[in-house]
Amino acid sequence: MSATIPADNLPLPHMALSRWGTEAEARDLGEGIRGLLRDVLGVTAAGGARFDPAAVTASPSRLSGTDLAALAGVVGAGNVSVDDAQRLPRARGKSTPDLLAWRLRPAVDCPDAVVAPRDDDEVAALLDWCGREGVAVVPFGGGTSVVGGLTPDAGGHRAVISLDLAHFDALESIDAESGEAVLGAGLSGPRAEDLLAAHGFSLGHFPQSFPYATMGGYAMTRSSGQSSAGYGRFDEMVRGLTVVTPVGVMEAGRAPASAAGPDLRQWLLGSEGAFGVCTRVRVRIHPVPEVVRHEAFRFPDFATGAAALRAVEQQGTGPTVIRLSDEVETMVNLATATESIGEAAEGADGDGAGADPGGCLCLCLFEGTAEHAESRLAETRAVLLAHGGASLGPGPARSWEHGRFGAPVLRDSLLDNGALVETLETATDWSALPALRDAVAQALTAALEASGTPALVMCHISHVYPTGASLYFTVVAGQRGRDPIAQWYDAKRAACEAIVATGGTITHHHAVGVDHRPYLEAEIGEVGVRMLRAVKNAVDPHGVCNPGTLIP
Amino acid sequence: MSATIPADNLPLPHMALSRWGTEAEARDLGEGIRGLLRDVLGVTAAGGARFDPAAVTASPSRLSGTDLAALAGVVGAGNVSVDDAQRLPRARGKSTPDLLAWRLRPAVDCPDAVVAPRDDDEVAALLDWCGREGVAVVPFGGGTSVVGGLTPDAGGHRAVISLDLAHFDALESIDAESGEAVLGAGLSGPRAEDLLAAHGFSLGHFPQSFPYATMGGYAMTRSSGQSSAGYGRFDEMVRGLTVVTPVGVMEAGRAPASAAGPDLRQWLLGSEGAFGVCTRVRVRIHPVPEVVRHEAFRFPDFATGAAALRAVEQQGTGPTVIRLSDEVETMVNLATATESIGEAAEGADGDGAGADPGGCLCLCLFEGTAEHAESRLAETRAVLLAHGGASLGPGPARSWEHGRFGAPVLRDSLLDNGALVETLETATDWSALPALRDAVAQALTAALEASGTPALVMCHISHVYPTGASLYFTVVAGQRGRDPIAQWYDAKRAACEAIVATGGTITHHHAVGVDHRPYLEAEIGEVGVRMLRAVKNAVDPHGVCNPGTLIP
Repeated sequence: MSATIPADNLPLPHMALSRWGTEAEARDLGEGIRGLLRDVLGVTAAGGARFDPAAVTASPSRLSGTDLAALAGVVGAGNVSVDDAQRLPRARGKSTPDLLAWRLRPAVDCPDAVVAPRDDDEVAALLDWCGREGVAVVPFGGGTSVVGGLTPDAGGHRAVISLDLAHFDALESIDAESGEAVLGAGLSGPRAEDLLAAHGFSLGHFPQSFPYATMGGYAMTRSSGQSSAGYGRFDEMVRGLTVVTPVGVMEAGRAPASAAGPDLRQWLLGSEGAFGVCTRVRVRIHPVPEVVRHEAFRFPDFATGAAALRAVEQQGTGPTVIRLSDEVETMVNLATATESIGEAAEGADGDGAGADPGGCLCLCLFEGTAEHAESRLAETRAVLLAHGGASLGPGPARSWEHGRFGAPVLRDSLLDNGALVETLETATDWSALPALRDAVAQALTAALEASGTPALVMCHISHVYPTGASLYFTVVAGQRGRDPIAQWYDAKRAACEAIVATGGTITHHHAVGVDHRPYLEAEIGEVGVRMLRAVKNAVDPHGVCNPGTLIP
Repeated sequence: MSATIPADNLPLPHMALSRWGTEAEARDLGEGIRGLLRDVLGVTAAGGARFDPAAVTASPSRLSGTDLAALAGVVGAGNVSVDDAQRLPRARGKSTPDLLAWRLRPAVDCPDAVVAPRDDDEVAALLDWCGREGVAVVPFGGGTSVVGGLTPDAGGHRAVISLDLAHFDALESIDAESGEAVLGAGLSGPRAEDLLAAHGFSLGHFPQSFPYATMGGYAMTRSSGQSSAGYGRFDEMVRGLTVVTPVGVMEAGRAPASAAGPDLRQWLLGSEGAFGVCTRVRVRIHPVPEVVRHEAFRFPDFATGAAALRAVEQQGTGPTVIRLSDEVETMVNLATATESIGEAAEGADGDGAGADPGGCLCLCLFEGTAEHAESRLAETRAVLLAHGGASLGPGPARSWEHGRFGAPVLRDSLLDNGALVETLETATDWSALPALRDAVAQALTAALEASGTPALVMCHISHVYPTGASLYFTVVAGQRGRDPIAQWYDAKRAACEAIVATGGTITHHHAVGVDHRPYLEAEIGEVGVRMLRAVKNAVDPHGVCNPGTLIP
């Protein structure tokens, strides 16, 4: 790995090359998890592939000096780099296969340059140059894709550049009366929240990728945050957005709602850079909540808990966050305490939650004015209790909130220790949820057992709608064979095929990327694919916009 | 007008040829409105153009016997008609220009045939025949378009047929657990509600066109009902839909929410038949509410009232219906009592509402369980009172609910009596609302004064969002000159140009049709138009699907 000095104006991505989060966030596994790995999965510390920075090599840039001079002419010399230190961290996302690849495949296919335009005109000029020169463009925000969305696929072109949105980092305007803010696409979640908090506002979008992911990424991947019950998915927060396409700038979203034809916002949201580059979003914001109220509940089983969540959402009782872990996730998180593998941490400040292990843990948060939050909590509690829940007090929900972004950090420690761990997600109607959950869990278990390891499959509901809910799976098994990447892809393929066969969506909030592209046609049909391709060809006639993603 | 006998399987549209509603609904103006017309607008009963059924002639069908035999081969002989009695009512919608045209332009450009396919395969076969033969297709549901959406524009083809969805009239399935129903596109609002009520459910979509409009029309025009604050716009209710395009059947909406690329549901919703024919919708339903609570409020002025509605929506206090009439609408409806011209009827059962005329009337409904409705009413009332409202009790809100679908019926009586009356609507952000309202009102007033008549411009907010609201204008003036259609189009053009210049959407829920098409490019931009055209060309390669609408 050649450690060249990055060009001045190009910040390095915040996350460490080979792991989720920064080096400072890394932590060893505690005895609880080690015991679980050893006893349940037969995984011992020595088994995992390790990352060796010295072994890493970046593919050489295929761009010529003339090319680089041209790029520098568009965005300024300080905003173009072919340094390995800049190209390497933009070469891969943060899926488990990505993380394993740093350990197992140190020869890295990199984008041929990193380019960071400073405004819409520069993005347009860059796309124009790329179209004329046959160079593909992969937009880069926080680098948190877990579906191969950053894969530097040149799509048959002679080179591919990573277009970093780092300079689109401003709170461009705020309309306090309308509750709207215009945010640069390169703003990370925490930075956007800080800027809004200075005006007394919050966006309220808290996906697990929150510490690193950016506004543009949220929009282009249809991100959904943990407070989606209260504030909606990101695609519901977007009042308008700017996408610079190769044929011109698109400003979508003229009004809060409109009957002026198809909603073009919803054509651009989820387009993953295939139609152009999102440079800013106009989003709904709300005053920083006066209070946050917490309450956790235990249900005897997942079906009972799911029926209770369904009643809450269909009656509109108004939680900001509502989640339900299945029996396995509840048990594992209890066993592993604060370093929980799944998302629903419990027991850090007790409140009797540990007294009665078993069942399914449900976590709720309520935000707003004191009266609003109390009213929504009381109405929600009444429904949950009537549907078989038992209150555990606020403790487990507080613990979860405290550690809500921590789970992915643990994944690297697990990988280092010989475990194979990954998450995947889907969604369907309430009536179809049990069959979908069973099918995915069985597919994962069977595939991993076929590779020679038992598997721990945990599941939770984290996003609810009146007609259905998401299912989020966390899988832990043992790395087996010489290629745990292939081992995981086999399991993931089995899960995806189960999702397709059972009628779920191939992705509720992780997006399509390279990984889910083979399943998109089954999801949207031949006519849907035709529509996507038509728009792609219309706005990206040279096919340079993220050619590896989205379009089957 | 030749009164031929309709073919057996083809029902006639429910509404009378020349008016909104049935002949039985027609009613004369009372003295309140007559006085208003006379005193304020100088309109006297003798001034209006009258409808003469005997003068009506239908354009001859351009289809040959061979064509009709081919169509009968596709849909069955009983489902094809060239009778004038079938073609005439499908020739025009129900805008004021349409209604005036029955009075003033009795030579009617009609679709060349009416064809009513019975299933998706027949729709597909029909589109296939039309593509091969160069015959355009205009879908027909309830016939309630007020934007020229039914204009039988052949788009350069040799003929145009009206494709009636009447046979898609079933509640195809119901999923009580998920709260979903699959409804045929040809089902009217009341029929759908009746079918759902038998299972204890309601859709909750109540636009003013409710008595006649159909599910397919709601979907294809992005309809928004009076209970949108509680149950959402129709595009938010649609969990999935089927659109038969010339290149295949599109089933959009695999899950309640998804990150699998752009939301193709939102590409089809609002497509107004330009991409194909909607044959069914899968919609969110909810249990028939246990209770409906009513409360009305008076605000001293529109700005104060709008700020109060904004607070309600931004705080999420949860009304099912919330509306605010401006000073003029409040005054006119008070003066005209139960036969109100605008929408916000008041005073039928008093409650002191009439004691203090002036100000702005706000109407609220709350639905759900008794506890839910009471909680939402209490929270909403507290916000409205804190923002300067004074409660008027339930009476005015009950009166409004009772007469909520009645206003359009009065339009024909007003036209018959020499008034020019029409509605139009837009939406924007809260902060931009006052300027938009002023601009539209001034444009309408100036244009109508230029035509030689004073104008009464009433306005209300009937759809609220966290970031903004709709504005609905009702205009009453005097018919002037020999061509009141042109007189109105001049005023409408002025209003549309004011909307474009002030940043509103050209239509919040009336759709695009022929009338708004000239303004769509200003709304969605050149890239947006390019996207629409690309999809149109991809799914309708022969350009036979409703060529007169949507695409600029």
